[in-house]
Amino acid sequence: MKVVDRQVDETQWQEQVIESFVNMVKAQDGDFEVLGKLSMAVSDPASLQMTIDFLSQDPIAKQAFIQRYRLGNVDLQALRLLPENTLGCLYAKHMLEKNLKPLEANTTENEHQYLMAHITETHDIWHVVTGCQTSIQGELKLEAFSAAQLHTSRFWLSLIAKNILKAVVYDIEIAAEYMDIITSGWTMGKNAKPLFGIQWNQLWNTSIEEIRASLNIIV
Amino acid sequence: MKVVDRQVDETQWQEQVIESFVNMVKAQDGDFEVLGKLSMAVSDPASLQMTIDFLSQDPIAKQAFIQRYRLGNVDLQALRLLPENTLGCLYAKHMLEKNLKPLEANTTENEHQYLMAHITETHDIWHVVTGCQTSIQGELKLEAFSAAQLHTSRFWLSLIAKNILKAVVYDIEIAAEYMDIITSGWTMGKNAKPLFGIQWNQLWNTSIEEIRASLNIIV
Repeated sequence: MKVVDRQVDETQWQEQVIESFVNMVKAQDGDFEVLGKLSMAVSDPASLQMTIDFLSQDPIAKQAFIQRYRLGNVDLQALRLLPENTLGCLYAKHMLEKNLKPLEANTTENEHQYLMAHITETHDIWHVVTGCQTSIQGELKLEAFSAAQLHTSRFWLSLIAKNILKAVVYDIEIAAEYMDIITSGWTMGKNAKPLFGIQWNQLWNTSIEEIRASLNIIV
Repeated sequence: MKVVDRQVDETQWQEQVIESFVNMVKAQDGDFEVLGKLSMAVSDPASLQMTIDFLSQDPIAKQAFIQRYRLGNVDLQALRLLPENTLGCLYAKHMLEKNLKPLEANTTENEHQYLMAHITETHDIWHVVTGCQTSIQGELKLEAFSAAQLHTSRFWLSLIAKNILKAVVYDIEIAAEYMDIITSGWTMGKNAKPLFGIQWNQLWNTSIEEIRASLNIIV
């Protein structure tokens, strides 16, 4: 490909990202179609590879990229019966009480697909482990936490920028609270050990306190 | 004005803010024309009034809104001769060595104009007092510091969102450093005493260490 063609392609791609971002700003919260388009636009091979390289510095994540562990089918009704403070019980309650369906992840035929599938299918476990609610505020904190953990994620960072701009345009009185939350989530994500690649389905019986302590997560 | 007209006006205003934001994202750093248009778009009376009300909780700021102190003409060559660690000498060096002209502020016939004029003409003093350089990173830190100090400033918050989105679109490898800087500047701005309304031209002879200590600024 000629240099000039590449530059045209890159400029087109940048325009697409900005357009997807603006659509997210204008969309209602919880519009998964617009979110999906943003995710597609920002999941370019180059930045995904940077994230994989960054995560692979951790031996657990590196192993996960080789083995490509999946969460598999989860029996929420059974997990619900585990002792109250276990990951399994708390995850089941989180899903059942909020009527959430496990986020569907795609195939994992290569590392890029695995990165996205693992993040997608463990997102609600990250909610429980970090103590982030499913409110706008809780999602924003987890966006900042996830951005810190993944280091070069165009997806999570664009959601942070989106939320700041939404506050600027539609609700300036909430902006300071948002900035506090971003600061808190980013710091938590930097201080915590890597969550990527953990086989959560081996930890359903483990207490949340033990999991948080082992990951250096202070809620 | 009818309710429906007001909603049309508000929607138009929101579109203008988003458009100005996108133009900032696409502009070169240091494009003051595009910056001026963003500033115009986000300086609506309602949010300026919120900022004034927030700042006025501090007696020094409250007094400043009444007296409308101006920085006045500053003789940089004379300030340059003050002892090395004084605010005056450091400010003069900052301006002369970087070949900066004092930012021109408008008239101050009401509180809204005074808010903007004071912030504009003291911006470079805030650089010196907070130890923020004039690099992109230093500006970003001061944006986060200023956003924390002003609490409901659409202007500074939109610049933070702009810088995150620029990193997402054009330079993802710098994003984590940007987030560290935003976290640091926001925290510094929250912990510091209010800078708004200080009569800096009474403090040229005061040492920077004394000023920072009195404002709880740890560089």
